[in-house]
Amino acid sequence: MSDLTTAPVTVPAVSADLHASVQQFYAHHMQMLDDGRVESWAQGFTEDGVFAADGHPHPATGREQIVAGASRTVAQLAEQGISRRHWLGMIAITPGDGVVRARSYAIVYQITAADGASIRSSTTCEDVLVPDGRGSWLIRHRYVRQDVPA
Amino acid sequence: MSDLTTAPVTVPAVSADLHASVQQFYAHHMQMLDDGRVESWAQGFTEDGVFAADGHPHPATGREQIVAGASRTVAQLAEQGISRRHWLGMIAITPGDGVVRARSYAIVYQITAADGASIRSSTTCEDVLVPDGRGSWLIRHRYVRQDVPA
Amino acid sequence: MSDLTTAPVTVPAVSADLHASVQQFYAHHMQMLDDGRVESWAQGFTEDGVFAADGHPHPATGREQIVAGASRTVAQLAEQGISRRHWLGMIAITPGDGVVRARSYAIVYQITAADGASIRSSTTCEDVLVPDGRGSWLIRHRYVRQDVPA
Repeated sequence: MSDLTTAPVTVPAVSADLHASVQQFYAHHMQMLDDGRVESWAQGFTEDGVFAADGHPHPATGREQIVAGASRTVAQLAEQGISRRHWLGMIAITPGDGVVRARSYAIVYQITAADGASIRSSTTCEDVLVPDGRGSWLIRHRYVRQDVPA
Repeated sequence: MSDLTTAPVTVPAVSADLHASVQQFYAHHMQMLDDGRVESWAQGFTEDGVFAADGHPHPATGREQIVAGASRTVAQLAEQGISRRHWLGMIAITPGDGVVRARSYAIVYQITAADGASIRSSTTCEDVLVPDGRGSWLIRHRYVRQDVPA
Repeated sequence: MSDLTTAPVTVPAVSADLHASVQQFYAHHMQMLDDGRVESWAQGFTEDGVFAADGHPHPATGREQIVAGASRTVAQLAEQGISRRHWLGMIAITPGDGVVRARSYAIVYQITAADGASIRSSTTCEDVLVPDGRGSWLIRHRYVRQDVPA
């Protein structure tokens, strides 16, 4: 329940540039997904990127699988009359050796005719980000875990 | 459903200063509104600013109309015993020619005696921001769209 | 209901470094709490830090009391099968004389087997932050107010 150690806790230093570019990447990236622009969204992963989730039996590996999975979801939601809005928050950044780790909360809101806007799920999202060579980021590995009761 | 193009997607570069000043502007601005300080809040628009929403028949044009509209809403909410909290998130910034475009998600939470805190609506907010001459921003044009079922 | 003054409203200037370091502090700090790492979390307060809330009869004063209070809450939630996710948003920063004031919205989401993810409460969080000497921040005083009907 509580730490055994009381060693000083160090919040990893991030430069203002790193912070801004990560936030900007996520904002544009999530809006692409919620707008149904799945091919643009998939380009936010590396060519060999991995999207894993504890709710999915197999991770999607590579952009092709990532596009295929997201396209199926977008088609299903459209059939069911559901829009989604993915919010990332409390983005805790840990710079590493050539990569950046970002652990965030992600809440998925959904909008339907019957219920209006409501919370669909609360998840924790762990990303490994690498530079895209143009000042922004690509996701090399994403793991999304459903938040569960304690 | 999906893009026809697979041309590289470029996330617009933002400087750390721009990112920080836009976030700081929105944080203070939204808190003014939710605190009922509508005249201070209206000063976050240009003198000839426009506030348009797909839920309103006519846009409010100029600070005077913007104050009048917000004051009516604040008075109605007070009568009904409703407090609101406007959250902006996933703020996607696109710097332009002397202006900055910001497309954000906005969720309005409301607090009532009967229901406690709940989600009132999920919207998408498109702003055109111009420098206020003192290091922050003014909204020249805002368009708020209700998020609707797919 | 509305301001009597129409004097120009100035949004306090924040440097990009300050903005980034405050956001990064809060992200890591809240994740420690929600992960049940209460001793690490308590180290995010000064040794003599104060955690006050209008829902609590007495403020917790000093890290020892802060740890004790948070540990009790974490144990109760575990018994009840409740997980929580604390989101801070609309973080309005006002730099002062050697300290930084941050007034934020805080929504607590909770996850239970019966209800999934839902909103537990909407609050306003007023912090006085001081430098931790290692590029990040410590909370010297926190006051959390439940948002109430108008």
